[in-house]
Amino acid sequence: MSKASQDGITTKKGENFDEWYTQVILKAEIADYSPVSGCVVYRPSGYAIWENIQRETDLRFKEAGISNTYFPLFIPERLLKKEAEHVEGFAPEVAWVTQTGSSKIEERLAIRPTSESLMYEVVSRWIRSWRDLPMRLNQWNNVVRWETKNPTFILRSREFLWNEGHSLFATREEADAERDQILGIYKEITEEYLALPGYLGKKTKAETFAGAEGTYSIEHLLPDGKAIQGPDWHSDGQNFSKAFGIVFIDQRGEKQFAYQNTWAISTREIGVMLAVHSDDRGAIIPPKLAFVQVVLVPIVNDESKQAVLEEARKLMERLRGKFRTVLDDRDHLTPGRKFNEWELKGVPLRVEFGPRDMKEKQVVLVRRDTGGKRAAKVAELSDEVAKELDSIQASLFKRASDALAKGTRDASTLPELKRVLSQQGGIVRVPWCGKPECEAKMREVTGGKILNVPLDQKPPKAKCPGCGDEAVSLVNFGKSY
Amino acid sequence: MSKASQDGITTKKGENFDEWYTQVILKAEIADYSPVSGCVVYRPSGYAIWENIQRETDLRFKEAGISNTYFPLFIPERLLKKEAEHVEGFAPEVAWVTQTGSSKIEERLAIRPTSESLMYEVVSRWIRSWRDLPMRLNQWNNVVRWETKNPTFILRSREFLWNEGHSLFATREEADAERDQILGIYKEITEEYLALPGYLGKKTKAETFAGAEGTYSIEHLLPDGKAIQGPDWHSDGQNFSKAFGIVFIDQRGEKQFAYQNTWAISTREIGVMLAVHSDDRGAIIPPKLAFVQVVLVPIVNDESKQAVLEEARKLMERLRGKFRTVLDDRDHLTPGRKFNEWELKGVPLRVEFGPRDMKEKQVVLVRRDTGGKRAAKVAELSDEVAKELDSIQASLFKRASDALAKGTRDASTLPELKRVLSQQGGIVRVPWCGKPECEAKMREVTGGKILNVPLDQKPPKAKCPGCGDEAVSLVNFGKSY
Repeated sequence: MSKASQDGITTKKGENFDEWYTQVILKAEIADYSPVSGCVVYRPSGYAIWENIQRETDLRFKEAGISNTYFPLFIPERLLKKEAEHVEGFAPEVAWVTQTGSSKIEERLAIRPTSESLMYEVVSRWIRSWRDLPMRLNQWNNVVRWETKNPTFILRSREFLWNEGHSLFATREEADAERDQILGIYKEITEEYLALPGYLGKKTKAETFAGAEGTYSIEHLLPDGKAIQGPDWHSDGQNFSKAFGIVFIDQRGEKQFAYQNTWAISTREIGVMLAVHSDDRGAIIPPKLAFVQVVLVPIVNDESKQAVLEEARKLMERLRGKFRTVLDDRDHLTPGRKFNEWELKGVPLRVEFGPRDMKEKQVVLVRRDTGGKRAAKVAELSDEVAKELDSIQASLFKRASDALAKGTRDASTLPELKRVLSQQGGIVRVPWCGKPECEAKMREVTGGKILNVPLDQKPPKAKCPGCGDEAVSLVNFGKSY
Repeated sequence: MSKASQDGITTKKGENFDEWYTQVILKAEIADYSPVSGCVVYRPSGYAIWENIQRETDLRFKEAGISNTYFPLFIPERLLKKEAEHVEGFAPEVAWVTQTGSSKIEERLAIRPTSESLMYEVVSRWIRSWRDLPMRLNQWNNVVRWETKNPTFILRSREFLWNEGHSLFATREEADAERDQILGIYKEITEEYLALPGYLGKKTKAETFAGAEGTYSIEHLLPDGKAIQGPDWHSDGQNFSKAFGIVFIDQRGEKQFAYQNTWAISTREIGVMLAVHSDDRGAIIPPKLAFVQVVLVPIVNDESKQAVLEEARKLMERLRGKFRTVLDDRDHLTPGRKFNEWELKGVPLRVEFGPRDMKEKQVVLVRRDTGGKRAAKVAELSDEVAKELDSIQASLFKRASDALAKGTRDASTLPELKRVLSQQGGIVRVPWCGKPECEAKMREVTGGKILNVPLDQKPPKAKCPGCGDEAVSLVNFGKSY
């Protein structure tokens, strides 16, 4: 096997998804393994994706009046225990600090799996009257959940990066009104930046965040037919404010508990995005998030070398500051090797430039997503590159949306649900009566679960496959990471 | 005592510095205590300072060709032990994870006190040839050092946020050439954004970072006469590359160890900045870093209220998008109470606007730093505000530079050094022969230490106060946090 083919992806997306996915992440230099199992090293290309997601999301949070903060990594055990369901949900996954230097510490400290308990203990000191509300806080940080299930590279890691938004309101109405704003931001980010479609809906009680009253999520579909939860928003009601004493004096002078919400988007999205878009030749990264958006590859022979390189540097000047561009002028690699390398790494657009192009005052643009090639005038280079990048961004979303539509199926009975899920996978639309017993039955029979329940739907005029009663909704059902 | 005076600072900077400093941070709502001692909660106003420092620093790193990454929080004990001096320096301060969920884990995991050992283990896999170098990586993250000394609010916290830059080069010359670039960036950020002067120099061997060959720092002076280390840059030579096997094939086909550097700026700078600039009325925050740069306070009486507020909203439109501005239209507080509150919080510029101003088509600008007031035409509002903010930024740096110059003293004998330090404090310029014994003697006699040794100096033609030999340099000496 030649060096080039060893460097490339040695399996196919449609044949061995898990192995393909891991190879893409590693060989495209997106991320690497850490010596601690389940923890991820983000290399420059991978971290740039996160920085871009973060910047765009943060901009929208700030426009919405949300302020960034930082709360510490450590949560004393007694605080984590203050909200009963919350600690029950997270205790099995907590990493505990018990020693510092060579001493044992008095009270174990949890590495935050999420910051509700610490934040609310502190924030309760900041709120006195209705005038202090709403208070909408966010932090971008790292959290640790030591899951006993096998971690999956980026998709399910023991440490991950995320935003955790935490807001407090005087009334339930105001708190509820935040839902569409936050989920709207996440929808915009996932669709317009990650080029990732998903199904928005409400989680069932069984799948609701530990301590919350209601959880809403965007659910994605991976190419292996499994679903995976994307960004979410939780309505906490007064659960935490009662546990942590977050009390304010309302306009009539009476003490009230605040209403709270929380929400998050995490680095998991990077894994989902790469799994959905990439192909057998390597990573495909949407232009808006790519570390390198354009690679300029001069095609030279001995006699043209100097002139072509000189001209290529002028092309770079036209692109610099407008696009994240690299000029690949390495002279020990053939153009073919360079093409392979940048395709593997997922750079959205390649600009080829050789002696003939120089004469014609043109370049050749090659798209990473389709492999499509076309010539473009040097004089119009920036516009043409911008157009092509926009087209790639839109096309990736279209392709992913088509795949989601194709991967969304129907079932109306338990055997049908089981058969569809085991033979085809995907997200299955199933009628449901709303009873937890029927949810549990569907789960047991199929190994899948209710991902979420689409909002604002009319009853589907169908029977629940669990009990035969009238269904109240169609739900999104699937096997999930 | 009235509510207003309780809310304000109840001690003086010049009388009880420690208490004053803590009150400023807490009452200006910059930061708060965490339930875990020595950990800091950054509130929106405090975290915005860090975001602004981070954004400006990161921009310059990227322009220099440095790429951001993320390496995990956990370092297995065996890795931390790979570089002998490094582990010796950090082991006493490490927070150890020993349990996850209800299980004991096999190998203790260190919460990173700094990431050399983990990064270099991983990065050694990424480097094969001289073509892979230089590799210049950075991360913005949280680190934990469980110092046994008493933690000091923000200035010395057990968890802090920082950048850790890590670069690898093929030759010592290239590695050394990075020093002035990085320290130049830090100098620009501290001076032009934090308005903080400092003394640049090289640490002595005794004060060098654990595992490094040379440490260079910027040293600040606090108003209590103690020095505190600011951003730093370390030359590691081949110490870590030898311990972690970071080997590359050079252009002659021979194996070589890489040369490495590391560098950092941390949230400690926020504390230094506030301590230096703030006054007895509360925080003073340099305009370039302030969460709120301008507060617009309408001055209304019952009859003018509606007209003034309407006009104030138009003024807001002129300022919005150009400056981070708040319109304080709360109607339950007097203008005087509002002035006190925004002064306490350190907002650089207040714009007052009342019925008479409306008639005159003017506003009154009030500077937080000097209290200086002047009228400005509404038609020129943006320009006038910009001018005033620039002037405040420059004036804070000037004032801090004057204080540093005034706080810098000379001493040529041990008794003199001791007397100056104990009676006046500050940073003392002392001749030194370069011998560790004399450094140790000066430390023992005075309780201070050599902060750093200014670069590019000629021998001072003076005697070392330790041994009486010819001095080779003047050093910056002081008591330090």
